[in-house]
Amino acid sequence: GTAPAIVNAQQQIRWRLASSFPKSLDTIYGAAETFSKNVAEATGGKFQISVHAAGELVPAFGVVDAIQQGAIDAAHTAPYYFFGKNEAFAFDCAIPFGMNSRQQTAWMYEGNGMKLLREFYAQFSVVNFPMGNTGAQMGGWYRKPIKSPADINGLKMRIGGFGGRVLGKMGGVSQNIPGGEIYQSLEKGTIDATEWVGPYDDLKLGFHKVAPYYYYPGWWEGGAQLSLYINDKQWGALSNEYKAIVRQAASDAHVVMQARYDARNPNALKQLIAEGAKLDRFPKSVMDAAFKARNEVYKELNDTNPDWKKIYGDYAKFLADSYQWAPIADGSYDQYMSAQKL
Amino acid sequence: GTAPAIVNAQQQIRWRLASSFPKSLDTIYGAAETFSKNVAEATGGKFQISVHAAGELVPAFGVVDAIQQGAIDAAHTAPYYFFGKNEAFAFDCAIPFGMNSRQQTAWMYEGNGMKLLREFYAQFSVVNFPMGNTGAQMGGWYRKPIKSPADINGLKMRIGGFGGRVLGKMGGVSQNIPGGEIYQSLEKGTIDATEWVGPYDDLKLGFHKVAPYYYYPGWWEGGAQLSLYINDKQWGALSNEYKAIVRQAASDAHVVMQARYDARNPNALKQLIAEGAKLDRFPKSVMDAAFKARNEVYKELNDTNPDWKKIYGDYAKFLADSYQWAPIADGSYDQYMSAQKL
Repeated sequence: GTAPAIVNAQQQIRWRLASSFPKSLDTIYGAAETFSKNVAEATGGKFQISVHAAGELVPAFGVVDAIQQGAIDAAHTAPYYFFGKNEAFAFDCAIPFGMNSRQQTAWMYEGNGMKLLREFYAQFSVVNFPMGNTGAQMGGWYRKPIKSPADINGLKMRIGGFGGRVLGKMGGVSQNIPGGEIYQSLEKGTIDATEWVGPYDDLKLGFHKVAPYYYYPGWWEGGAQLSLYINDKQWGALSNEYKAIVRQAASDAHVVMQARYDARNPNALKQLIAEGAKLDRFPKSVMDAAFKARNEVYKELNDTNPDWKKIYGDYAKFLADSYQWAPIADGSYDQYMSAQKL
Repeated sequence: GTAPAIVNAQQQIRWRLASSFPKSLDTIYGAAETFSKNVAEATGGKFQISVHAAGELVPAFGVVDAIQQGAIDAAHTAPYYFFGKNEAFAFDCAIPFGMNSRQQTAWMYEGNGMKLLREFYAQFSVVNFPMGNTGAQMGGWYRKPIKSPADINGLKMRIGGFGGRVLGKMGGVSQNIPGGEIYQSLEKGTIDATEWVGPYDDLKLGFHKVAPYYYYPGWWEGGAQLSLYINDKQWGALSNEYKAIVRQAASDAHVVMQARYDARNPNALKQLIAEGAKLDRFPKSVMDAAFKARNEVYKELNDTNPDWKKIYGDYAKFLADSYQWAPIADGSYDQYMSAQKL
């Protein structure tokens, strides 16, 4: 039933949120817009969060410093970008041969993920919330076929920090190239390969026209989670109602972003193949070499980075347990369905 | 920045929500509690939703009638329970050899699922929101091994309406038995088999002690979605802010429920095996016979139920497209990871 309205007072708030992504990556960038719209709707427009594309307020990779300095109130980013600052950031996004998207969400919401990351992030004045996941990404675009680990030796690839370090152990050479220059570098042969995201985003950039071999899976990101960062003082100043609204608005954006990828990738993949992309699975020998290199990198990190080591123990146990169950009901169901004429 | 507080008036509201589940199914029942807590927190306690276990206000299968009559404001249920009322309810939950949980969420949030179901539900005065998913379920507990489709012939199985109809085409006999009586029926041999949910819920009921053969996958529910039902007049009476809060609170509960299953099932499966459960995959011949029977049932439904037919066309296309993409990045990643020593 409905009782008479009572008087309530809530703050009027304006925040600025810096995305690490350009508007052209509409699926990822859109998660921050969904979040902002959610908060505004739930508060009758009293809590406004303006969303700014990468570079508008701060550079894509400057959002952690900007949050820490209080220059911005919030950010939406892929935490593994800050692997160079501290490798442990990557647990909030993806590590090579790590969790898939359902596992990452389960670890964050119902495992120890959120607790461990909140402790880690305190030194950066960041309060984090999961906000989107791409699902398993593709293994990228190559000018020539990859038939064995020998084909990785000397391969110049545009790939992010963590995947790049593992690739380096395999004899590959990782390159940092801004998004807008990748196509030309591939065309000229300055690089041999690039990774990006998956069919929906990749199609827009047209890499298939200059590097047609499209391998899967992206073993360095089996379920890349995006994260909402909030400056801890701004978070602390919110009323309990606004804190609840922000948390739930982020959860909704978390669902929506993955749903968008899952709804849009299938047709994009069809179109890429129609336009000449040569789809193939990485040979097992290449996957095995990468997995071995990953284990070496993790051993080094456990020996050198206490923040990494503290989180890795819990993460690795959750991962191992989860992959005892994932192939049973879900895995066998998907495998059967993938083979049917639907 | 923060501006001075302004005066706002929001209604005080009390709703009663009837769950179709007992409190002992804490993961599913808990989704409604999470939702209720979310709404209360976001509104400073002004919008209170009391959650009632099955039977407290109305029987588990009486929630649609109760919503339609305005006897309750909201419900949390598994829509395929209402398969006997109209088979199209099942699209909001699971159909045999249908979508997995990510696909179902994508279809609801970013495909045409929500739009089509809102149109269908209007005749029942229901406004729906996705609120939880179990993931792919197990294929249930059997007193004897299932080695070929011949072993389904004459099999007396406790199984819900839609799976039961397909089982009937395979020569099986579906039985309706209340949850509390299943164990005894299995022990006595009154039934030969039962399905329930997955390791975490199954462990509590102890079926492995009397019917130890535990098969997978549950082909009749590859990703069973739970749904929040709201009476359309109560929904219409909410302010825009409260509508936004309810929608986002449901999204958060949607994420949390699946995360709970994903976090808890692995250890429960280990324990079941340690206590004697004999885990095995359904033989391909049995899966193929079930898939054929499913196609026959769908042909009949397309011929006889216009509500079914209208939604099925869209659902089937989304499903077929999605299973062209699902095995590529996610499927190959999970398959590789499942085979590693982690």
